[in-house]
Amino acid sequence: MEKRISRIEKLNGIKNSKKVDAFLFTSASSVKYFSGYFFYFEYGSSPFQLVPAVLMVVPGLDATLILADNEAGQSSSVDPDIEVHLYESYTYEKAPDPAGACMERIRTFIRKNKLESAAIGVEINSLPFIVSKTLQEEFPFIEWVDIAAEIDVLKSVKDPDEIEFIRAAARLADVGQQAVLKYACDGMTELELFSLAHRDMESVTGYRVPLMADLSSGVGTSSGGGMPTNKKIKTGDLILSDFTPCMNGYWGDSCNTMVVGEPTADQRRTFLFVGEALHMAIEKIKPGVQASSLDRLMRAHIGGYPHHGGHGVGTLYHESPRIVDYNDTVLVPDMVIALEPAIYKESYGIRLEHLVRVTKTGSEILTKFQHQFER
Amino acid sequence: MEKRISRIEKLNGIKNSKKVDAFLFTSASSVKYFSGYFFYFEYGSSPFQLVPAVLMVVPGLDATLILADNEAGQSSSVDPDIEVHLYESYTYEKAPDPAGACMERIRTFIRKNKLESAAIGVEINSLPFIVSKTLQEEFPFIEWVDIAAEIDVLKSVKDPDEIEFIRAAARLADVGQQAVLKYACDGMTELELFSLAHRDMESVTGYRVPLMADLSSGVGTSSGGGMPTNKKIKTGDLILSDFTPCMNGYWGDSCNTMVVGEPTADQRRTFLFVGEALHMAIEKIKPGVQASSLDRLMRAHIGGYPHHGGHGVGTLYHESPRIVDYNDTVLVPDMVIALEPAIYKESYGIRLEHLVRVTKTGSEILTKFQHQFER
Repeated sequence: MEKRISRIEKLNGIKNSKKVDAFLFTSASSVKYFSGYFFYFEYGSSPFQLVPAVLMVVPGLDATLILADNEAGQSSSVDPDIEVHLYESYTYEKAPDPAGACMERIRTFIRKNKLESAAIGVEINSLPFIVSKTLQEEFPFIEWVDIAAEIDVLKSVKDPDEIEFIRAAARLADVGQQAVLKYACDGMTELELFSLAHRDMESVTGYRVPLMADLSSGVGTSSGGGMPTNKKIKTGDLILSDFTPCMNGYWGDSCNTMVVGEPTADQRRTFLFVGEALHMAIEKIKPGVQASSLDRLMRAHIGGYPHHGGHGVGTLYHESPRIVDYNDTVLVPDMVIALEPAIYKESYGIRLEHLVRVTKTGSEILTKFQHQFER
Repeated sequence: MEKRISRIEKLNGIKNSKKVDAFLFTSASSVKYFSGYFFYFEYGSSPFQLVPAVLMVVPGLDATLILADNEAGQSSSVDPDIEVHLYESYTYEKAPDPAGACMERIRTFIRKNKLESAAIGVEINSLPFIVSKTLQEEFPFIEWVDIAAEIDVLKSVKDPDEIEFIRAAARLADVGQQAVLKYACDGMTELELFSLAHRDMESVTGYRVPLMADLSSGVGTSSGGGMPTNKKIKTGDLILSDFTPCMNGYWGDSCNTMVVGEPTADQRRTFLFVGEALHMAIEKIKPGVQASSLDRLMRAHIGGYPHHGGHGVGTLYHESPRIVDYNDTVLVPDMVIALEPAIYKESYGIRLEHLVRVTKTGSEILTKFQHQFER
């Protein structure tokens, strides 16, 4: 894997364009993006921390990650250029005050860097009121500037190390698709099949893998999927499996649709038709192409689907650029996008998805699993 | 299962004591507690919503749940006395603005209920800055009052329907413990064992189960556990399994420690000793007893452990009352507490945990799995 690249320097552009002096990040996605720190979120956030982590940055001068001490063990992936300041989040010996302890660290950063009357860029959707309220009261001259839109644009073009992280997560999605092809059989429940696919992914990483997934069988595929249930798979059922695993804070994404047993001629044709739309779009990808044109191309070919044609993937499973009719964003090298055309009929649905990197001259498919309808 | 009880009326007490006119809840735990709405969080929150849900309440007059429309399918558990207002969170046809759409619903509620100069109770740890900032600018006469501590106390005593929800979640923990006893064997990895236990829980519910878990083997048990890894279980290993599953927004919790093969005499004695501490504390539970005394009793019996003696369980996996030396909260009927004494030695550790309800005269153990060391 390539060397970790410091993305902190990229904040200089936003510092100038938004006229801010410093940044305070509280979204898990941005904290991951700028610091490398990944919070393991599969069972929700801990009652012993205010937010998983706070990243404060004065570009060129100071970058500090403020972390609950019960998260210290998860901090191995933090960029070595970033200082980690732990705060006491919980002890059985006295009453915990994680919010107060975290605020004290934030205050210290502000005073140390003389930000008492600075403009500070924040993500207003994720910043908790306790932080803004306390700081507004204590530092009434600080100006708070929302920089979420600028961060969104920044994230859409990936660094080499990010491509490698996404490649690793895409491989997990591949492993899941192989597992479905291998294990799906008459009498098995959707949840049992899901469990085997998830297990196979986790045997690759050696740790738990957060996994968003549609795994539907039979008529359930006609509405595009849904979470797996106790429904038993039957011979003749189609299985739609859309796996979106998270590995170290970066997401993969792929979707296949297969049949248990023999498909009808109509199903077989539909599978090929959806694949055709997908690969027509992939072949069209290159720098200078508008996101919207990919969606229009696929939609025109197969007659539409009631969802987006795709989306960016990175530290969020859906991010910019969205592959939709209203988004004329121009593709540039190292954007990573998932394309997922589909046809939903009354009794079944077929969706096929690849994760693709925009290259200097075209594209590279990051999901290596070849869509396969029949075994 | 017993009828859903409206907990909204309980807000009258806080309304009077904190002198507030209305409430705005944004934490998943409080939204679940007061409205019944459960957000499925296992893969993090959606980029198409500001927060999973916002609950606004004027006690006796209006209770409205503001929900992203992509969450509408998850709203079946909402208390019928609560109005559900959906906002457009994402469409592939035009650019999404979930935060703006959600704010518009919040504004409408404020105007409709004439709260322009009211005092509104909020949870300042979870309320996003965008909500507070927008409202502060548009309604400068609203006073924002943090009521998190009062809500915490309210939640610690459970209603009959909550006891049933927790009982169901405790059953899932039992199923996990049975699975470990049944499947653990030489050569299996911790992750494979975890996968089977998780699968068995999900076969009971018929849907995915968020699951916090320690599952450690061998010397890994000596530090109290940790997430499962690719480490292979060997004959003679102890396995510490602490399962905290979430079912419909309520958590269960239990821990067992077992041995694969034959234990040493010292291990066998230690298992019995920890079980003795646990049951001494359970037998002491009744209304009027202080939380701290349970911790002290267990700690004195087995000589201490480097964590709390237990904690409340409900819509959070750790909540009040904490079973720690510094917490003199007096137990009252229908508190639900987990007790988890442990002994950690150099080469192994044993922790045993039950989930217990305080009754009028004593206690009822909600986790039915009998701790078992050997097969």
